[in-house]
Amino acid sequence: MSQTPVGIDGIELWSGKLRLDLPNTFAPVKDEDPEKYTKGLGVEHSSLPDVYEDIVTMGANAAKQLLDRKGLTPDDIGRIDVATESAFDNSKPVSTYIAGCLEEVYEDDFHHANKGERKFACVSGTQSIDDAYNWIRAGRNRGRAALVIATDTALYERGDPGEATQGAGAIAMLIDSDPDIVALSTEQGFGSADETDFLKPNQQFPSVDGKRSMQVYLARMREALEDYESIADDTHSDDFAYIPFHTPFPGMVRKAALLGFRHISRGTDVESALASEIGSQPRESEYVSREAYEEAIRGYMDELKETDTYREWYETAIDPTVNIARMVGNWYTGSVHIARLSTLMSAVDADRDLAGEKLLVASYGSGAQAEIHAETVQPGWREAIAPINVDTQLEARYDLSFDEYERVHDVHNHEKDTEIEAFTTPESEFVFTGWGRMSERRYEYVE
Amino acid sequence: MSQTPVGIDGIELWSGKLRLDLPNTFAPVKDEDPEKYTKGLGVEHSSLPDVYEDIVTMGANAAKQLLDRKGLTPDDIGRIDVATESAFDNSKPVSTYIAGCLEEVYEDDFHHANKGERKFACVSGTQSIDDAYNWIRAGRNRGRAALVIATDTALYERGDPGEATQGAGAIAMLIDSDPDIVALSTEQGFGSADETDFLKPNQQFPSVDGKRSMQVYLARMREALEDYESIADDTHSDDFAYIPFHTPFPGMVRKAALLGFRHISRGTDVESALASEIGSQPRESEYVSREAYEEAIRGYMDELKETDTYREWYETAIDPTVNIARMVGNWYTGSVHIARLSTLMSAVDADRDLAGEKLLVASYGSGAQAEIHAETVQPGWREAIAPINVDTQLEARYDLSFDEYERVHDVHNHEKDTEIEAFTTPESEFVFTGWGRMSERRYEYVE
Repeated sequence: MSQTPVGIDGIELWSGKLRLDLPNTFAPVKDEDPEKYTKGLGVEHSSLPDVYEDIVTMGANAAKQLLDRKGLTPDDIGRIDVATESAFDNSKPVSTYIAGCLEEVYEDDFHHANKGERKFACVSGTQSIDDAYNWIRAGRNRGRAALVIATDTALYERGDPGEATQGAGAIAMLIDSDPDIVALSTEQGFGSADETDFLKPNQQFPSVDGKRSMQVYLARMREALEDYESIADDTHSDDFAYIPFHTPFPGMVRKAALLGFRHISRGTDVESALASEIGSQPRESEYVSREAYEEAIRGYMDELKETDTYREWYETAIDPTVNIARMVGNWYTGSVHIARLSTLMSAVDADRDLAGEKLLVASYGSGAQAEIHAETVQPGWREAIAPINVDTQLEARYDLSFDEYERVHDVHNHEKDTEIEAFTTPESEFVFTGWGRMSERRYEYVE
Repeated sequence: MSQTPVGIDGIELWSGKLRLDLPNTFAPVKDEDPEKYTKGLGVEHSSLPDVYEDIVTMGANAAKQLLDRKGLTPDDIGRIDVATESAFDNSKPVSTYIAGCLEEVYEDDFHHANKGERKFACVSGTQSIDDAYNWIRAGRNRGRAALVIATDTALYERGDPGEATQGAGAIAMLIDSDPDIVALSTEQGFGSADETDFLKPNQQFPSVDGKRSMQVYLARMREALEDYESIADDTHSDDFAYIPFHTPFPGMVRKAALLGFRHISRGTDVESALASEIGSQPRESEYVSREAYEEAIRGYMDELKETDTYREWYETAIDPTVNIARMVGNWYTGSVHIARLSTLMSAVDADRDLAGEKLLVASYGSGAQAEIHAETVQPGWREAIAPINVDTQLEARYDLSFDEYERVHDVHNHEKDTEIEAFTTPESEFVFTGWGRMSERRYEYVE
């Protein structure tokens, strides 16, 4: 490929500053076994926003960290896209609010940057990266970079089964040519259908059909992988150092990874090597009915997941992708980008040399669409990833009691008018200060 | 330019099937002079949706007309983006609902098409076209076209000053290489700032500061034009056959056109030729204060608009762009695309040979952002535009009495639970049939 690479040149994350401890605070009140959360869902903590935080402050704070680390100012940015499913306005995009915040602290402005907002459940962060990539490839960026911000407060109705998978935070990514972190493949695979699995019809909190949602995730992901393979080379488990998936909760990734491994090992040396142990993969033509075939597939997968081959692959290629998700919960649009970051941070910690290696990135949004593309890790990745202060942020979170959690949930419920004292003290960050006369939300920078 | 042109290859429009007559039905009830609407705002009728219509049905019906006219099926489409500020779900995008409708009537499906939704007041239709253009230029389309659908029900709170500028309809556009209608310029100009002029904070109907909104429209438009000129050649009034503007109401376009003409004639032979009549344009350096300069500019513009030069330019380049808007009102995201269509239909009627001529397209969304780009009319434009059945659709609309209008407004108000009989009978179109168990909206095709 002779083209200049285009991809992710910088990443910063901003976690909601509160945390809910699932095994120690949530489980006892629900009278549940803590392992339901830690082993079943695979989550330890949810990040939640303090009372002065929302999707704008978290997004603006992540973006400011990113601009400052890269030594950039608004003049260097030609495009700001925000991906969210937590918007509080049906017309004015969150990107204008975030740009307004940033303009308070920089001398130049974003008046010539194209600002936008994308919505498609959890997949729109990836769609926004794709748009930025295309904009650069189309020669429209005038040497400037794109700022993509995925920001959400992923809250459920109190008592909803999804309550244990909540989370809140933002991830800001700089998309540029000659990127420091990863270059994106031109090739993309899509699996997309009109599904009623998770939606928010004129409401803040989702209506969810949990079982259907998991089936749809797997079905769309398989379609996307097939579509990707139809234009890129066939995938093989050796091709990719890591496979970051959208992570509503790490337990979902366990299911997706097993499906993915079966798919990418089919017809390869990996399947042959496993045959003496668990047989070959069932082929539909060998079965009298679809049902019989699916039953056989389930049997094969039950055995596959117990093999050393699969376990080793999972430990290496998948487990490091959910390290952060375990500590923060689901950030919706940010989730798959947290998975990538988690992966790269883990490789820094393991002192692994990733430059030139590939990731297969598997994004998903309910409603529903999966997208698969490949990324090639760039030579500057380690220096770009090592300084990101995720651990410091997560350790600094205020640990909520259950009573406090209930009040925080009410504060962020648009239907309720609850005011409580903040649990943390803002410093060098943007904060929400209240509603204006046209019901606009107002913000300021606290030194 | 040696690149293959990329742009708009097909257009179809679907109007809401009801109409409110402003001078004859609305004005008498408001006890207003009918000319307040016909001359001041420049609007005769608003299109409104019948009870079985919404943004999904109008968008799907426009898209089906477009696919059928172009002889395409879902397999030919790689991307569906919907632009709207009337979404009824905070997570699931309208494009999935529209794709679901279309899949009911075609044999193949959109499972490998990237679907999305963009929000930025009225400018996101243009942003979606831009994304589609970039996607094709980036080499990611695999020979497929993009379907961009701008669909809105632009309703205001009853009694709001904006009530007279309502409208409802969808416009579907096919973006492809070697387009039949117009090729888009690579160059784009943006004028964008965090403005509180028009917003919908957790509400269906807008909060509007009307005076501020008009100022912001003009200020952002001037910035966008300056940004466009910084990368394209300086604009001259002779360069563009027509200048379609976003048209919240035709009266706004009169203001924008005057500002635009002053800007593009500044420092040109046009300004010189006018000097004997109305003097040269004031230059800021000649005035002691900004206020004095602005006062002088206002004086110059008052005289400019009475000159034959300006009137002739307005009649030729601007007036044809608002023909449809006058009959349908504001369609928000569709509005500037209606202006382009209006222009091209007027050129067909006048038997004007437009191939190779240029349009300057001036889009705008409150909150706020203007975008300017150029379009070059393609050789196939006349054959593509002539068959579009706008007149038939508009003439077939049911003419509402004021009482009926009040009931229709209630039906489309999400806060009210009103059921009334439809005024028209659906035929060969998608209709809304009610809400499902997860509060999803449900649709079917009526033969």
